[in-house]
Amino acid sequence: MSEVEDVVVHVPLGDRAYDIQIGRGLIGRAGALIAAVAPGAACAVVTDANVAKAHLGALEQSLAAAGIRHESVVCAPGEASKSYAGLQEVCDAVIGARMERGDIVVALGGGVIGDLAGFAAAVVRRGMRFVQIPTSLLAQVDSSVGGKTGINSAHGKNLVGAFHQPILVLADVGALDTLAEREFRAGYAEVAKYGLIDDAAFFGWLEEHHRGVFAGGPDRVHAIRTSCAAKAAMVVRDEKEEGDRALLNLGHTFAHAFERLTRYDGARLVHGEAVAVGLACAFRFSAALGLCSGQDAGRVEGHLRTVGLPTRIRDIPGWDGGAAAILDAMFQDKKVQRGALTFILARGVGQSFIARGVDADRVRAFLDAELDRT
Amino acid sequence: MSEVEDVVVHVPLGDRAYDIQIGRGLIGRAGALIAAVAPGAACAVVTDANVAKAHLGALEQSLAAAGIRHESVVCAPGEASKSYAGLQEVCDAVIGARMERGDIVVALGGGVIGDLAGFAAAVVRRGMRFVQIPTSLLAQVDSSVGGKTGINSAHGKNLVGAFHQPILVLADVGALDTLAEREFRAGYAEVAKYGLIDDAAFFGWLEEHHRGVFAGGPDRVHAIRTSCAAKAAMVVRDEKEEGDRALLNLGHTFAHAFERLTRYDGARLVHGEAVAVGLACAFRFSAALGLCSGQDAGRVEGHLRTVGLPTRIRDIPGWDGGAAAILDAMFQDKKVQRGALTFILARGVGQSFIARGVDADRVRAFLDAELDRT
Repeated sequence: MSEVEDVVVHVPLGDRAYDIQIGRGLIGRAGALIAAVAPGAACAVVTDANVAKAHLGALEQSLAAAGIRHESVVCAPGEASKSYAGLQEVCDAVIGARMERGDIVVALGGGVIGDLAGFAAAVVRRGMRFVQIPTSLLAQVDSSVGGKTGINSAHGKNLVGAFHQPILVLADVGALDTLAEREFRAGYAEVAKYGLIDDAAFFGWLEEHHRGVFAGGPDRVHAIRTSCAAKAAMVVRDEKEEGDRALLNLGHTFAHAFERLTRYDGARLVHGEAVAVGLACAFRFSAALGLCSGQDAGRVEGHLRTVGLPTRIRDIPGWDGGAAAILDAMFQDKKVQRGALTFILARGVGQSFIARGVDADRVRAFLDAELDRT
Repeated sequence: MSEVEDVVVHVPLGDRAYDIQIGRGLIGRAGALIAAVAPGAACAVVTDANVAKAHLGALEQSLAAAGIRHESVVCAPGEASKSYAGLQEVCDAVIGARMERGDIVVALGGGVIGDLAGFAAAVVRRGMRFVQIPTSLLAQVDSSVGGKTGINSAHGKNLVGAFHQPILVLADVGALDTLAEREFRAGYAEVAKYGLIDDAAFFGWLEEHHRGVFAGGPDRVHAIRTSCAAKAAMVVRDEKEEGDRALLNLGHTFAHAFERLTRYDGARLVHGEAVAVGLACAFRFSAALGLCSGQDAGRVEGHLRTVGLPTRIRDIPGWDGGAAAILDAMFQDKKVQRGALTFILARGVGQSFIARGVDADRVRAFLDAELDRT
């Protein structure tokens, strides 16, 4: 593997501005990097049992070496921790570790840990500082950037939470070396999404360099940097998701419905896989509506299949839902505005746009066609 | 009772600016007032069983008359609802009532309901709109103004929460007519506090007009208006409590310790009573330190006793703690900064200031003297 230099993406959010640092070996250097942005602050590290085995020792050593007082909270792995009970566990542990307002909650893990720890940071003592150390590709390019934190409710995912920006994000690309291939691949769907939203050149680059991204090394850093910069730019334009930021949901209205209907069973479908199918659906739906060419829809599907991602509803193991069930699930999505269905559609690769008030009948017709073909 | 006109205190917090409207019969006019600031928004009313009996019917009627879709969530009365379980109950009920981001959580009740409903508003869908309709004097002059929301943790009160400003506060002074005398009196301690912090003229006015404030009518509106304006000014100067806003804690370092040591048993001591003893202690401690005259300390105590409030630690029914226990409880207070004790002390009536790093030995000596006298 070739040598890799750190790169930094700055997120210029005024008095909530912060840096995303991307590189190799950052977990082992985290203590010094955190001390530089928050001298004197103590750290409550929140992680899960799996990530703890792989990385907690190195992080604690690095915090100790920097003279940072620290305590660790180890949650059960999996989505179930993103619950009211999980929030209570983390908040009480952070408070019990005598952390004050100026101290830091550090999320060491994937998206679940980042969302849960970030929400705890937002609410303990009405707001502590927050550092993200994402250890999955999905978390590095998506959930650790942008300040969205939260837990799930009985009524749906991420329905309870806060916007709470980190003061620093450390994306250690070395942490991805130990990921299961399937998990890395799922995260790649979100990487490809940034190209599809508004950066056709990046999508073209991915078509050329995806092997390098999977292998690690400078191509991986470039892909993560480009993804973080794209998301950061959109977050800066629209921090509270009142407008443009919705473009980040390309493929997600479909994806959330698929996840809901497979009951968030990661054995069948993980989020990134749902996004891959959702991206392909968004382009085929756009083509069906005459918005983009069938060629573009085919190109999107082709690249996702090349890296091994699913692109068809029928690719989801054990799928048995019909168009009506998918539509129902879409109507329960929190991104529904006053009853109208909102989709992110596209006029081509890198040419996505927000389509409000999409007619449910056209969605149903599209889904019927999708489910009939093999 | 003489006729009363509405008065409005504006809280100029930039894009989070809002009005506090104070007057009689506001609950019955709430629908039209809410529709004026948030046209088209639905309302989830959060209240407790006691307040529901007295006021929920009138509020629901008023919302219906204004054509506002509304649902009500009725919690168990009492501090126990300010818990993780209470938060889950309210959040899930609000989500279940199909409230979206632009819709409103309405808190109808005292401080507990305001804190709980406000926190739910802060976190459901990462932030809904929020309207306060405080029905206790304490809530009208203190907790409904300033955006502090939250719940209690096993480690202490209000340790988990958010800053979330309302879009409107409706302080219906008529709602106070049905309060128990003891509860009204407890709220009065916070009213007196505003005079003691930085408004000697207001304290003098209270010494003259306290009967009018207790009776209702224009004097009550004036006292509430002056209190809200004082708190609002301090919140505007320091929204996130990083500086001056701490003056609002005059009497509270003592009060929180008394509440903790009586295990928040409202039968023995309610918050406002603890504040009354705390205010008297803050002035006597200031006198003991040679900061203010014994005459001023006596004047503070005299007025609080005149309206029937306790002013001595020994006034607390069944008190049995010593100076060491009180100091311990103070050190557990969340307002402790990196181990140093912070007090709000005074150089006279209306001349309070933040005293950081107060020597624990001087506090102990003062408490020993307090507990020895009868």
